[in-house]
Amino acid sequence: MWRDDLPRFQPSHCRPLTVFTRPLARLIEQFERLPGIGPRTAQRLALHLLRQPEEQSRAFADALLAARQQVGQCQRCGHLSADPICDICRNPERNIGVICVVADSRDLLALERTREFSGSYHVLGGLISPMDGIGPEALGIQPLLQRLDPEQVEEVILALTPSVEGDTTSLYLARLLKPFCRVTRIAYGLPVGSELEYADDVTLARALEGRRIVE
Amino acid sequence: MWRDDLPRFQPSHCRPLTVFTRPLARLIEQFERLPGIGPRTAQRLALHLLRQPEEQSRAFADALLAARQQVGQCQRCGHLSADPICDICRNPERNIGVICVVADSRDLLALERTREFSGSYHVLGGLISPMDGIGPEALGIQPLLQRLDPEQVEEVILALTPSVEGDTTSLYLARLLKPFCRVTRIAYGLPVGSELEYADDVTLARALEGRRIVE
Repeated sequence: MWRDDLPRFQPSHCRPLTVFTRPLARLIEQFERLPGIGPRTAQRLALHLLRQPEEQSRAFADALLAARQQVGQCQRCGHLSADPICDICRNPERNIGVICVVADSRDLLALERTREFSGSYHVLGGLISPMDGIGPEALGIQPLLQRLDPEQVEEVILALTPSVEGDTTSLYLARLLKPFCRVTRIAYGLPVGSELEYADDVTLARALEGRRIVE
Repeated sequence: MWRDDLPRFQPSHCRPLTVFTRPLARLIEQFERLPGIGPRTAQRLALHLLRQPEEQSRAFADALLAARQQVGQCQRCGHLSADPICDICRNPERNIGVICVVADSRDLLALERTREFSGSYHVLGGLISPMDGIGPEALGIQPLLQRLDPEQVEEVILALTPSVEGDTTSLYLARLLKPFCRVTRIAYGLPVGSELEYADDVTLARALEGRRIVE
């Protein structure tokens, strides 16, 4: 079983480590720069694209350039948009008297998916976070104030994540906006479908605090 | 606590669902086409790139096109290469009398990382898998046979995954190559650092079968 006729190799520790050919290594590096993509995943994605028809890489490259060049922010609400004013702001059926304030465009889309809200939005582009050096002036708060009067805003709904940053931002905005219109915030409580037993203390406390009379 | 003065919204179920602006949606779609990237991750990656300087998207797009256009297979060993003959095959210090057969370029790089092997490689581009309709003719076996004589190959080392497909391919290649040179396969057994107690039955059986006399 022990074959002593098998030759031994000369391990070469001075030889430079063999890596992927330069163009492939560059593509892997680009994938690795994306958040949450490690070296293994980057390798897998790059090798996958090499096995696909060239059109796919071309379409991907085009999409990358087009998105970066064409997508900016809506001048009114700050939502990601390829036009100066976004689809929602241009929609005459939307009630511009109610503005829902969100931290970013993903939150806006999450609310849109409910199909329950027919007002307009305002995207702050983040939350106040002194720890990260993000003050109110870094967010789209000034543009929000400028919308209140011309759009005759009756209500601003704060739809921010229930976190230290979200609460700080809500508090800041509420104080700022109260003189001009009604300020509300979305309800915090038990998520639908969750088990009360497993809810965390803070959520339960908020749910108790936000209790409502049963009709 | 119950404010019945708050207006209700008219939920609009006939309104088309708001989605990301077209150029951004296209980029998200491209990310979603990659293996293991779901809609949420695709969204996160695309939005991340929008927040980066335009040069990053440009570099990414360039890398995509360059990799797809420039990277092909080494004409001798089948390894991914931007040149007709890859770096390893062109290296005069490598022993061309020993060929290590691997399923794909990732396996080749894993072996290279050990720095223990100074021979040359042959990349099959897959494993025989009748279930997936992959027969021997779909793999780079003919080019391997053609290398045996001119390169005066003394030994072919089969370094294939220990699986049904890997074993089938090893068996097939061993029968084919035995008349021309020595055919070996890498050892299967307990991984270094693992606990014998937790090893699976097949690995343990292979480890027993492959036992060697202690020197």
